[in-house]
Amino acid sequence: MTHSFDEAIALTPDGSGSVTARTHPDWANMVGPYGGVTAAVALRAVLEHPEVQGRPAALTVNYLAPIADGEYTLTAVPVRTNRSNQHWTITATQEGKTLLTGTALFAQVRETWSDTEADFPQVPPPAEVAPRPGALPLPWLNRYEMRVIDGEIPEGPEQARADSATQQWFRHAEPRGWDFPALASACDVFFPRIFLRTGERAPAGTVSFTAYFHAGAEELAAQGEYLLGVAQGSRFGHGLFDQAAQIWGESGDLLATTHQLVYYK
Amino acid sequence: MTHSFDEAIALTPDGSGSVTARTHPDWANMVGPYGGVTAAVALRAVLEHPEVQGRPAALTVNYLAPIADGEYTLTAVPVRTNRSNQHWTITATQEGKTLLTGTALFAQVRETWSDTEADFPQVPPPAEVAPRPGALPLPWLNRYEMRVIDGEIPEGPEQARADSATQQWFRHAEPRGWDFPALASACDVFFPRIFLRTGERAPAGTVSFTAYFHAGAEELAAQGEYLLGVAQGSRFGHGLFDQAAQIWGESGDLLATTHQLVYYK
Repeated sequence: MTHSFDEAIALTPDGSGSVTARTHPDWANMVGPYGGVTAAVALRAVLEHPEVQGRPAALTVNYLAPIADGEYTLTAVPVRTNRSNQHWTITATQEGKTLLTGTALFAQVRETWSDTEADFPQVPPPAEVAPRPGALPLPWLNRYEMRVIDGEIPEGPEQARADSATQQWFRHAEPRGWDFPALASACDVFFPRIFLRTGERAPAGTVSFTAYFHAGAEELAAQGEYLLGVAQGSRFGHGLFDQAAQIWGESGDLLATTHQLVYYK
Repeated sequence: MTHSFDEAIALTPDGSGSVTARTHPDWANMVGPYGGVTAAVALRAVLEHPEVQGRPAALTVNYLAPIADGEYTLTAVPVRTNRSNQHWTITATQEGKTLLTGTALFAQVRETWSDTEADFPQVPPPAEVAPRPGALPLPWLNRYEMRVIDGEIPEGPEQARADSATQQWFRHAEPRGWDFPALASACDVFFPRIFLRTGERAPAGTVSFTAYFHAGAEELAAQGEYLLGVAQGSRFGHGLFDQAAQIWGESGDLLATTHQLVYYK
Protein backbone atom coordinates (compact mmCIF):
# COMPACT_ATOMS: atom_id res chain seq x y z
CA MET A 1 0.00 0.00 0.00
CA THR A 2 1.36 3.40 -0.95
CA HIS A 3 1.83 5.95 1.85
CA SER A 4 -0.54 8.91 1.50
CA PHE A 5 2.44 11.30 1.43
CA ASP A 6 3.85 9.44 -1.56
CA GLU A 7 0.44 9.55 -3.21
CA ALA A 8 0.30 13.31 -2.55
CA ILE A 9 3.69 13.96 -4.17
CA ALA A 10 3.26 11.58 -7.11
CA LEU A 11 4.14 13.16 -10.45
CA THR A 12 3.32 12.11 -13.99
CA PRO A 13 5.38 13.40 -16.94
CA ASP A 14 3.06 15.27 -19.31
CA GLY A 15 5.20 14.67 -22.39
CA SER A 16 6.18 18.33 -22.80
CA GLY A 17 8.95 18.36 -20.16
CA SER A 18 6.60 19.31 -17.35
CA VAL A 19 4.92 17.04 -14.80
CA THR A 20 1.39 16.76 -13.49
CA ALA A 21 0.61 16.65 -9.77
CA ARG A 22 -2.76 16.13 -8.15
CA THR A 23 -4.02 17.47 -4.81
CA HIS A 24 -4.70 14.77 -2.21
CA PRO A 25 -7.66 15.00 0.19
CA ASP A 26 -5.58 13.65 3.10
CA TRP A 27 -3.26 16.65 2.83
CA ALA A 28 -5.83 19.43 2.51
CA ASN A 29 -5.39 22.57 4.59
CA MET A 30 -7.94 25.33 5.33
CA VAL A 31 -7.75 26.54 1.70
CA GLY A 32 -5.90 24.34 -0.79
CA PRO A 33 -3.21 21.80 0.13
CA TYR A 34 -0.86 22.00 3.13
CA GLY A 35 2.06 24.19 2.00
CA GLY A 36 4.63 21.63 3.09
CA VAL A 37 3.34 19.03 0.66
CA THR A 38 3.33 21.65 -2.10
CA ALA A 39 6.98 22.46 -1.30
CA ALA A 40 7.71 18.72 -1.44
CA VAL A 41 6.00 18.46 -4.83
CA ALA A 42 8.06 21.41 -6.12
CA LEU A 43 11.27 19.79 -4.89
CA ARG A 44 10.25 16.48 -6.39
CA ALA A 45 9.73 18.11 -9.78
CA VAL A 46 13.49 18.71 -9.68
CA LEU A 47 14.43 15.37 -8.07
CA GLU A 48 12.56 13.49 -10.82
CA HIS A 49 13.91 15.63 -13.65
CA PRO A 50 16.14 13.66 -16.04
CA GLU A 51 18.92 16.28 -15.84
CA VAL A 52 19.16 16.51 -12.06
CA GLN A 53 22.64 16.36 -10.50
CA GLY A 54 23.63 16.34 -6.83
CA ARG A 55 21.45 16.60 -3.76
CA PRO A 56 18.99 19.31 -2.67
CA ALA A 57 20.73 22.13 -0.78
CA ALA A 58 18.31 25.09 -0.93
CA LEU A 59 14.68 25.49 -1.90
CA THR A 60 12.60 28.66 -2.09
CA VAL A 61 8.89 28.44 -2.86
CA ASN A 62 6.48 31.36 -3.15
CA TYR A 63 2.76 30.66 -2.77
CA LEU A 64 0.95 32.98 -5.19
CA ALA A 65 -2.61 31.69 -4.84
CA PRO A 66 -4.38 28.60 -3.49
CA ILE A 67 -4.20 25.43 -5.56
CA ALA A 68 -7.71 24.23 -6.39
CA ASP A 69 -8.58 20.56 -5.87
CA GLY A 70 -7.42 18.52 -8.84
CA GLU A 71 -4.46 18.45 -11.19
CA TYR A 72 -1.79 21.09 -11.63
CA THR A 73 1.38 21.36 -13.68
CA LEU A 74 4.96 21.80 -12.47
CA THR A 75 7.82 22.94 -14.65
CA ALA A 76 11.39 22.66 -13.38
CA VAL A 77 14.15 24.21 -15.48
CA PRO A 78 17.88 23.52 -14.95
CA VAL A 79 19.08 27.08 -15.54
CA ARG A 80 22.74 26.44 -14.89
CA THR A 81 24.92 23.46 -14.01
CA ASN A 82 28.50 23.93 -12.94
CA ARG A 83 31.06 21.70 -11.25
CA SER A 84 29.65 21.99 -7.76
CA ASN A 85 26.11 23.37 -8.14
CA GLN A 86 22.97 23.14 -10.21
CA HIS A 87 20.45 25.98 -10.18
CA TRP A 88 16.76 25.45 -10.96
CA THR A 89 13.65 27.53 -11.41
CA ILE A 90 10.28 25.98 -10.62
CA THR A 91 6.76 27.11 -11.48
CA ALA A 92 3.36 25.57 -10.88
CA THR A 93 0.32 26.45 -12.94
CA GLN A 94 -3.30 25.45 -12.97
CA GLU A 95 -5.64 26.34 -15.80
CA GLY A 96 -3.13 28.83 -17.12
CA LYS A 97 -2.65 30.67 -13.82
CA THR A 98 0.74 30.64 -12.08
CA LEU A 99 0.26 29.50 -8.48
CA LEU A 100 3.85 28.96 -7.37
CA THR A 101 7.27 30.32 -8.25
CA GLY A 102 10.47 28.97 -6.81
CA THR A 103 14.14 28.26 -7.12
CA ALA A 104 16.26 25.33 -6.01
CA LEU A 105 19.96 24.75 -5.55
CA PHE A 106 21.34 21.26 -5.88
CA ALA A 107 24.91 20.56 -4.84
CA GLN A 108 27.50 17.88 -5.38
CA VAL A 109 28.54 16.14 -2.18
CA ARG A 110 32.06 17.27 -1.30
CA GLU A 111 34.16 16.38 1.72
CA THR A 112 35.10 19.52 3.64
CA TRP A 113 35.63 20.75 7.18
CA SER A 114 32.33 20.28 8.96
CA ASP A 115 30.65 21.12 12.25
CA THR A 116 27.17 21.60 13.64
CA GLU A 117 27.42 24.85 15.54
CA ALA A 118 23.82 25.14 16.71
CA ASP A 119 23.03 23.44 20.01
CA PHE A 120 20.56 20.58 20.10
CA PRO A 121 17.72 21.83 22.32
CA GLN A 122 17.39 20.38 25.79
CA VAL A 123 14.03 18.64 25.53
CA PRO A 124 12.46 15.48 26.89
CA PRO A 125 12.40 12.50 24.49
CA PRO A 126 9.24 11.94 22.40
CA ALA A 127 8.01 9.14 24.65
CA GLU A 128 7.77 11.62 27.54
CA VAL A 129 5.66 14.15 25.63
CA ALA A 130 1.93 13.62 25.08
CA PRO A 131 0.69 13.53 21.48
CA ARG A 132 -1.99 15.98 20.39
CA PRO A 133 -5.15 14.03 21.07
CA GLY A 134 -7.92 12.96 18.71
CA ALA A 135 -8.84 13.90 15.18
CA LEU A 136 -7.98 17.48 14.21
CA PRO A 137 -10.18 19.66 12.00
CA LEU A 138 -7.72 20.05 9.07
CA PRO A 139 -6.90 16.82 7.20
CA TRP A 140 -3.11 17.38 6.97
CA LEU A 141 -2.80 17.88 10.73
CA ASN A 142 -3.73 14.22 11.15
CA ARG A 143 -0.93 13.11 8.84
CA TYR A 144 1.67 13.95 11.48
CA GLU A 145 1.57 12.84 15.06
CA MET A 146 2.64 15.99 16.90
CA ARG A 147 3.98 16.06 20.45
CA VAL A 148 4.28 19.69 21.47
CA ILE A 149 6.87 20.21 24.18
CA ASP A 150 6.25 23.94 24.53
CA GLY A 151 4.32 26.57 22.58
CA GLU A 152 1.07 24.78 21.71
CA ILE A 153 -1.72 26.64 19.84
CA PRO A 154 -3.55 28.81 22.42
CA GLU A 155 -7.24 28.23 23.03
CA GLY A 156 -7.96 31.97 23.14
CA PRO A 157 -6.59 35.46 23.81
CA GLU A 158 -6.19 34.72 27.54
CA GLN A 159 -3.48 32.22 26.49
CA ALA A 160 -1.58 34.74 24.34
CA ARG A 161 2.15 34.47 25.02
CA ALA A 162 5.03 36.90 25.24
CA ASP A 163 7.00 34.92 22.68
CA SER A 164 6.20 32.75 19.68
CA ALA A 165 8.61 29.87 20.33
CA THR A 166 7.41 26.31 19.75
CA GLN A 167 9.30 23.06 20.30
CA GLN A 168 7.66 19.89 19.06
CA TRP A 169 8.41 16.32 18.19
CA PHE A 170 6.55 14.94 15.20
CA ARG A 171 6.46 11.83 13.06
CA HIS A 172 4.42 10.56 10.15
CA ALA A 173 1.09 9.33 11.51
CA GLU A 174 1.52 6.27 9.30
CA PRO A 175 5.15 5.06 9.47
CA ARG A 176 7.42 6.34 6.70
CA GLY A 177 11.13 7.14 6.57
CA TRP A 178 12.65 10.56 5.96
CA ASP A 179 13.91 11.70 2.59
CA PHE A 180 14.23 15.09 0.93
CA PRO A 181 10.55 15.57 -0.01
CA ALA A 182 9.48 14.52 3.50
CA LEU A 183 12.04 16.89 5.02
CA ALA A 184 10.82 19.77 2.81
CA SER A 185 7.30 19.08 4.01
CA ALA A 186 8.48 18.88 7.63
CA CYS A 187 9.90 22.40 7.35
CA ASP A 188 6.33 23.75 7.17
CA VAL A 189 4.93 21.74 10.07
CA PHE A 190 4.42 24.68 12.46
CA PHE A 191 1.14 26.53 12.94
CA PRO A 192 1.29 30.32 12.35
CA ARG A 193 3.40 32.05 15.04
CA ILE A 194 0.87 34.90 15.23
CA PHE A 195 -1.58 32.50 16.93
CA LEU A 196 0.80 32.24 19.91
CA ARG A 197 1.16 35.99 20.28
CA THR A 198 -2.49 37.05 20.00
CA GLY A 199 -4.18 33.86 21.12
CA GLU A 200 -6.53 34.30 18.17
CA ARG A 201 -6.77 32.30 14.97
CA ALA A 202 -7.01 35.01 12.35
CA PRO A 203 -6.48 33.97 8.73
CA ALA A 204 -2.77 33.39 8.06
CA GLY A 205 -0.75 31.66 5.37
CA THR A 206 2.82 31.30 4.17
CA VAL A 207 3.70 33.49 1.20
CA SER A 208 7.42 32.76 0.86
CA PHE A 209 9.27 29.69 2.14
CA THR A 210 12.97 28.83 2.11
CA ALA A 211 14.67 25.67 3.34
CA TYR A 212 18.37 24.87 3.56
CA PHE A 213 18.98 21.12 3.64
CA HIS A 214 22.04 20.25 5.70
CA ALA A 215 21.68 16.47 5.74
CA GLY A 216 22.68 14.22 2.89
CA ALA A 217 20.52 11.33 1.64
CA GLU A 218 22.20 8.68 3.83
CA GLU A 219 22.01 10.83 6.94
CA LEU A 220 18.32 11.43 6.28
CA ALA A 221 17.58 7.76 5.68
CA ALA A 222 19.29 6.91 8.99
CA GLN A 223 16.93 9.08 11.07
CA GLY A 224 14.44 7.54 13.45
CA GLU A 225 10.71 8.10 13.32
CA TYR A 226 10.63 11.38 15.21
CA LEU A 227 11.99 14.76 14.18
CA LEU A 228 12.25 17.76 16.49
CA GLY A 229 11.06 21.12 15.18
CA VAL A 230 11.77 24.45 16.86
CA ALA A 231 10.34 27.68 15.45
CA GLN A 232 10.06 31.33 16.42
CA GLY A 233 9.13 34.65 14.81
CA SER A 234 11.15 37.83 15.21
CA ARG A 235 8.93 40.68 13.98
CA PHE A 236 5.20 40.95 13.29
CA GLY A 237 3.81 43.98 11.47
CA HIS A 238 1.92 45.28 8.44
CA GLY A 239 0.26 41.92 8.00
CA LEU A 240 3.47 39.87 7.74
CA PHE A 241 5.74 38.03 10.13
CA ASP A 242 8.86 35.93 9.72
CA GLN A 243 9.49 32.49 11.16
CA ALA A 244 12.92 30.90 11.62
CA ALA A 245 13.00 27.19 12.37
CA GLN A 246 15.31 24.22 12.76
CA ILE A 247 14.50 20.58 12.05
CA TRP A 248 16.58 18.12 14.09
CA GLY A 249 16.87 14.36 14.12
CA GLU A 250 16.33 12.54 17.39
CA SER A 251 20.03 11.79 17.78
CA GLY A 252 21.06 15.42 17.30
CA ASP A 253 21.60 15.86 13.54
CA LEU A 254 20.58 19.33 12.33
CA LEU A 255 18.75 18.27 9.17
CA ALA A 256 17.44 21.63 7.93
CA THR A 257 17.15 25.29 8.77
CA THR A 258 14.12 26.99 7.29
CA HIS A 259 12.49 30.40 7.13
CA GLN A 260 9.22 31.76 5.96
CA LEU A 261 7.33 34.99 5.62
CA VAL A 262 3.69 34.61 6.59
CA TYR A 263 0.65 36.72 5.77
CA TYR A 264 -1.85 37.42 8.54
CA LYS A 265 -4.99 39.53 8.94
CA MET B 1 27.65 64.33 -6.91
CA THR B 2 26.04 60.91 -7.09
CA HIS B 3 26.85 58.41 -4.34
CA SER B 4 28.85 55.44 -5.61
CA PHE B 5 26.14 53.05 -4.36
CA ASP B 6 23.57 54.85 -6.48
CA GLU B 7 25.94 54.70 -9.43
CA ALA B 8 26.37 50.98 -8.82
CA ILE B 9 22.62 50.29 -8.80
CA ALA B 10 21.71 52.63 -11.69
CA LEU B 11 19.49 50.97 -14.30
CA THR B 12 18.69 51.95 -17.85
CA PRO B 13 15.57 50.62 -19.62
CA ASP B 14 16.64 48.72 -22.72
CA GLY B 15 13.38 49.27 -24.59
CA SER B 16 12.34 45.60 -24.47
CA GLY B 17 10.97 45.61 -20.90
CA SER B 18 14.32 44.72 -19.35
CA VAL B 19 16.92 47.02 -17.82
CA THR B 20 20.68 47.32 -18.16
CA ALA B 21 22.98 47.50 -15.14
CA ARG B 22 26.72 48.02 -15.13
CA THR B 23 29.29 46.74 -12.64
CA HIS B 24 31.02 49.49 -10.65
CA PRO B 25 34.74 49.28 -9.75
CA ASP B 26 34.11 50.71 -6.24
CA TRP B 27 31.91 47.70 -5.43
CA ALA B 28 34.10 44.91 -6.78
CA ASN B 29 34.62 41.80 -4.67
CA MET B 30 37.24 39.05 -5.05
CA VAL B 31 35.53 37.77 -8.22
CA GLY B 32 32.78 39.94 -9.70
CA PRO B 33 30.74 42.51 -7.76
CA TYR B 34 29.91 42.37 -4.04
CA GLY B 35 26.78 40.18 -3.76
CA GLY B 36 24.93 42.79 -1.72
CA VAL B 37 25.04 45.31 -4.51
CA THR B 38 23.87 42.64 -6.97
CA ALA B 39 20.92 41.87 -4.66
CA ALA B 40 20.19 45.61 -4.54
CA VAL B 41 20.27 45.81 -8.34
CA ALA B 42 17.87 42.82 -8.55
CA LEU B 43 15.49 44.49 -6.09
CA ARG B 44 15.74 47.77 -7.95
CA ALA B 45 14.76 46.07 -11.22
CA VAL B 46 11.41 45.48 -9.49
CA LEU B 47 11.24 48.85 -7.68
CA GLU B 48 11.73 50.68 -11.00
CA HIS B 49 9.31 48.50 -12.95
CA PRO B 50 6.26 50.44 -14.19
CA GLU B 51 3.84 47.85 -12.76
CA VAL B 52 5.27 47.67 -9.22
CA GLN B 53 2.80 47.86 -6.32
CA GLY B 54 3.49 47.98 -2.59
CA ARG B 55 6.79 47.73 -0.75
CA PRO B 56 9.48 45.03 -0.77
CA ALA B 57 8.74 42.27 1.74
CA ALA B 58 10.87 39.30 0.62
CA LEU B 59 13.73 38.86 -1.81
CA THR B 60 15.54 35.67 -2.83
CA VAL B 61 18.55 35.87 -5.11
CA ASN B 62 20.62 32.93 -6.38
CA TYR B 63 24.13 33.61 -7.64
CA LEU B 64 24.74 31.25 -10.56
CA ALA B 65 28.10 32.53 -11.80
CA PRO B 66 30.26 35.63 -11.40
CA ILE B 67 29.20 38.76 -13.25
CA ALA B 68 31.99 39.94 -15.54
CA ASP B 69 32.97 43.63 -15.52
CA GLY B 70 30.64 45.60 -17.73
CA GLU B 71 26.96 45.65 -18.57
CA TYR B 72 24.37 43.02 -17.76
CA THR B 73 20.63 42.71 -18.24
CA LEU B 74 17.91 42.31 -15.62
CA THR B 75 14.40 41.15 -16.33
CA ALA B 76 11.74 41.47 -13.64
CA VAL B 77 8.34 39.89 -14.33
CA PRO B 78 5.21 40.60 -12.25
CA VAL B 79 3.88 37.05 -12.21
CA ARG B 80 0.86 37.71 -10.04
CA THR B 81 -0.75 40.72 -8.37
CA ASN B 82 -3.52 40.29 -5.85
CA ARG B 83 -5.11 42.56 -3.28
CA SER B 84 -2.32 42.32 -0.73
CA ASN B 85 0.72 40.93 -2.55
CA GLN B 86 2.65 41.10 -5.78
CA HIS B 87 4.96 38.23 -6.79
CA TRP B 88 7.94 38.74 -9.10
CA THR B 89 10.57 36.64 -10.80
CA ILE B 90 13.94 38.19 -11.56
CA THR B 91 16.74 37.03 -13.85
CA ALA B 92 20.07 38.57 -14.78
CA THR B 93 21.91 37.64 -17.94
CA GLN B 94 25.19 38.62 -19.54
CA GLU B 95 26.06 37.66 -23.10
CA GLY B 96 23.22 35.17 -23.16
CA LYS B 97 24.23 33.39 -19.93
CA THR B 98 21.93 33.46 -16.90
CA LEU B 99 23.92 34.67 -13.88
CA LEU B 100 21.15 35.25 -11.35
CA THR B 101 17.69 33.88 -10.64
CA GLY B 102 15.42 35.28 -8.00
CA THR B 103 11.97 35.99 -6.71
CA ALA B 104 10.53 38.95 -4.85
CA LEU B 105 7.39 39.55 -2.85
CA PHE B 106 5.99 43.04 -2.62
CA ALA B 107 3.21 43.78 -0.15
CA GLN B 108 0.63 46.46 0.43
CA VAL B 109 1.06 48.27 3.73
CA ARG B 110 -1.74 47.16 6.06
CA GLU B 111 -2.32 48.11 9.68
CA THR B 112 -2.34 45.00 11.88
CA TRP B 113 -1.29 43.85 15.32
CA SER B 114 2.45 44.35 15.50
CA ASP B 115 5.39 43.55 17.75
CA THR B 116 9.13 43.09 17.53
CA GLU B 117 9.73 39.87 19.41
CA ALA B 118 13.49 39.58 18.91
CA ASP B 119 15.63 41.35 21.51
CA PHE B 120 17.88 44.20 20.47
CA PRO B 121 21.41 42.98 21.27
CA GLN B 122 23.19 44.51 24.24
CA VAL B 123 26.10 46.22 22.51
CA PRO B 124 28.09 49.41 23.00
CA PRO B 125 27.09 52.34 20.76
CA PRO B 126 29.04 52.83 17.51
CA ALA B 127 31.11 55.67 18.95
CA GLU B 128 32.59 53.25 21.51
CA VAL B 129 33.69 50.67 18.91
CA ALA B 130 36.80 51.19 16.80
CA PRO B 131 36.35 51.19 13.02
CA ARG B 132 38.32 48.72 10.93
CA PRO B 133 41.45 50.66 10.12
CA GLY B 134 42.93 51.67 6.79
CA ALA B 135 42.25 50.68 3.24
CA LEU B 136 41.07 47.09 2.80
CA PRO B 137 42.10 44.85 -0.09
CA LEU B 138 38.63 44.41 -1.66
CA PRO B 139 37.07 47.60 -3.06
CA TRP B 140 33.57 47.06 -1.64
CA LEU B 141 34.91 46.63 1.91
CA ASN B 142 35.92 50.29 1.82
CA ARG B 143 32.39 51.38 0.90
CA TYR B 144 31.18 50.58 4.43
CA GLU B 145 32.81 51.77 7.61
CA MET B 146 32.65 48.66 9.78
CA ARG B 147 32.98 48.67 13.55
CA VAL B 148 33.17 45.06 14.66
CA ILE B 149 31.99 44.58 18.25
CA ASP B 150 32.72 40.87 18.36
CA GLY B 151 33.61 38.20 15.82
CA GLU B 152 36.18 39.95 13.60
CA ILE B 153 37.91 38.04 10.75
CA PRO B 154 40.66 35.91 12.33
CA GLU B 155 44.25 36.48 11.27
CA GLY B 156 44.98 32.74 11.12
CA PRO B 157 44.05 29.26 12.39
CA GLU B 158 45.28 30.09 15.92
CA GLN B 159 42.38 32.57 16.10
CA ALA B 160 39.73 30.03 15.02
CA ARG B 161 36.65 30.34 17.22
CA ALA B 162 34.16 27.91 18.72
CA ASP B 163 31.27 29.86 17.21
CA SER B 164 30.70 31.96 14.12
CA ALA B 165 28.80 34.87 15.70
CA THR B 166 29.63 38.41 14.59
CA GLN B 167 28.13 41.68 15.84
CA GLN B 168 29.08 44.81 13.96
CA TRP B 169 28.01 48.38 13.43
CA PHE B 170 28.39 49.70 9.91
CA ARG B 171 27.52 52.77 7.88
CA HIS B 172 28.10 53.94 4.34
CA ALA B 173 31.69 55.20 4.11
CA GLU B 174 30.33 58.23 2.25
CA PRO B 175 27.13 59.44 3.94
CA ARG B 176 23.89 58.12 2.45
CA GLY B 177 20.48 57.37 3.93
CA TRP B 178 18.89 53.91 4.12
CA ASP B 179 16.29 52.73 1.64
CA PHE B 180 15.33 49.29 0.34
CA PRO B 181 18.24 48.79 -2.08
CA ALA B 182 20.70 49.91 0.60
CA LEU B 183 19.05 47.56 3.12
CA ALA B 184 19.21 44.65 0.66
CA SER B 185 22.91 45.34 0.22
CA ALA B 186 23.41 45.63 3.99
CA CYS B 187 22.01 42.10 4.40
CA ASP B 188 25.16 40.74 2.73
CA VAL B 189 27.68 42.80 4.70
CA PHE B 190 29.16 39.89 6.68
CA PHE B 191 32.34 38.03 5.75
CA PRO B 192 31.96 34.23 5.36
CA ARG B 193 31.23 32.58 8.72
CA ILE B 194 33.60 29.72 7.86
CA PHE B 195 36.55 32.13 8.30
CA LEU B 196 35.68 32.45 12.00
CA ARG B 197 35.52 28.72 12.56
CA THR B 198 38.69 27.63 10.77
CA GLY B 199 40.70 30.84 10.98
CA GLU B 200 41.53 30.34 7.32
CA ARG B 201 40.34 32.27 4.29
CA ALA B 202 39.47 29.52 1.88
CA PRO B 203 37.43 30.48 -1.19
CA ALA B 204 33.79 31.06 -0.21
CA GLY B 205 30.80 32.75 -1.80
CA THR B 206 27.07 33.12 -1.34
CA VAL B 207 25.01 30.88 -3.61
CA SER B 208 21.48 31.62 -2.33
CA PHE B 209 20.37 34.72 -0.42
CA THR B 210 17.01 35.59 1.12
CA ALA B 211 16.00 38.78 2.91
CA TYR B 212 12.75 39.60 4.68
CA PHE B 213 12.22 43.35 4.96
CA HIS B 214 10.34 44.27 8.12
CA ALA B 215 10.66 48.05 7.92
CA GLY B 216 8.53 50.28 5.73
CA ALA B 217 9.93 53.10 3.62
CA GLU B 218 9.35 55.80 6.26
CA GLU B 219 10.87 53.71 9.04
CA LEU B 220 13.92 53.08 6.86
CA ALA B 221 14.30 56.73 5.93
CA ALA B 222 14.17 57.66 9.64
CA GLN B 223 17.21 55.53 10.54
CA GLY B 224 20.48 57.10 11.60
CA GLU B 225 23.79 56.51 9.87
CA TYR B 226 24.69 53.25 11.61
CA LEU B 227 23.03 49.87 11.35
CA LEU B 228 23.80 46.91 13.58
CA GLY B 229 24.33 43.53 11.95
CA VAL B 230 24.42 40.23 13.82
CA ALA B 231 25.13 36.97 12.01
CA GLN B 232 25.81 33.34 12.83
CA GLY B 233 25.96 29.99 11.05
CA SER B 234 24.34 26.83 12.33
CA ARG B 235 25.81 23.95 10.31
CA PHE B 236 28.89 23.63 8.09
CA GLY B 237 29.34 20.58 5.91
CA HIS B 238 29.77 19.20 2.38
CA GLY B 239 31.06 22.57 1.22
CA LEU B 240 28.05 24.61 2.31
CA PHE B 241 27.03 26.50 5.42
CA ASP B 242 24.03 28.62 6.34
CA GLN B 243 24.07 32.08 7.86
CA ALA B 244 21.17 33.70 9.72
CA ALA B 245 21.41 37.42 10.36
CA GLN B 246 19.47 40.40 11.66
CA ILE B 247 19.87 44.02 10.60
CA TRP B 248 18.86 46.54 13.28
CA GLY B 249 18.60 50.31 13.37
CA GLU B 250 20.49 52.18 16.05
CA SER B 251 17.32 52.95 17.98
CA GLY B 252 16.21 49.31 18.05
CA ASP B 253 14.10 48.81 14.92
CA LEU B 254 14.51 45.31 13.45
CA LEU B 255 14.78 46.29 9.79
CA ALA B 256 15.46 42.93 8.15
CA THR B 257 16.09 39.27 8.87
CA THR B 258 18.21 37.53 6.27
CA HIS B 259 19.62 34.11 5.47
CA GLN B 260 22.06 32.71 3.03
CA LEU B 261 23.64 29.47 1.97
CA VAL B 262 27.34 29.85 1.29
CA TYR B 263 29.74 27.71 -0.73
CA TYR B 264 33.20 27.04 0.72
CA LYS B 265 36.20 24.95 -0.23
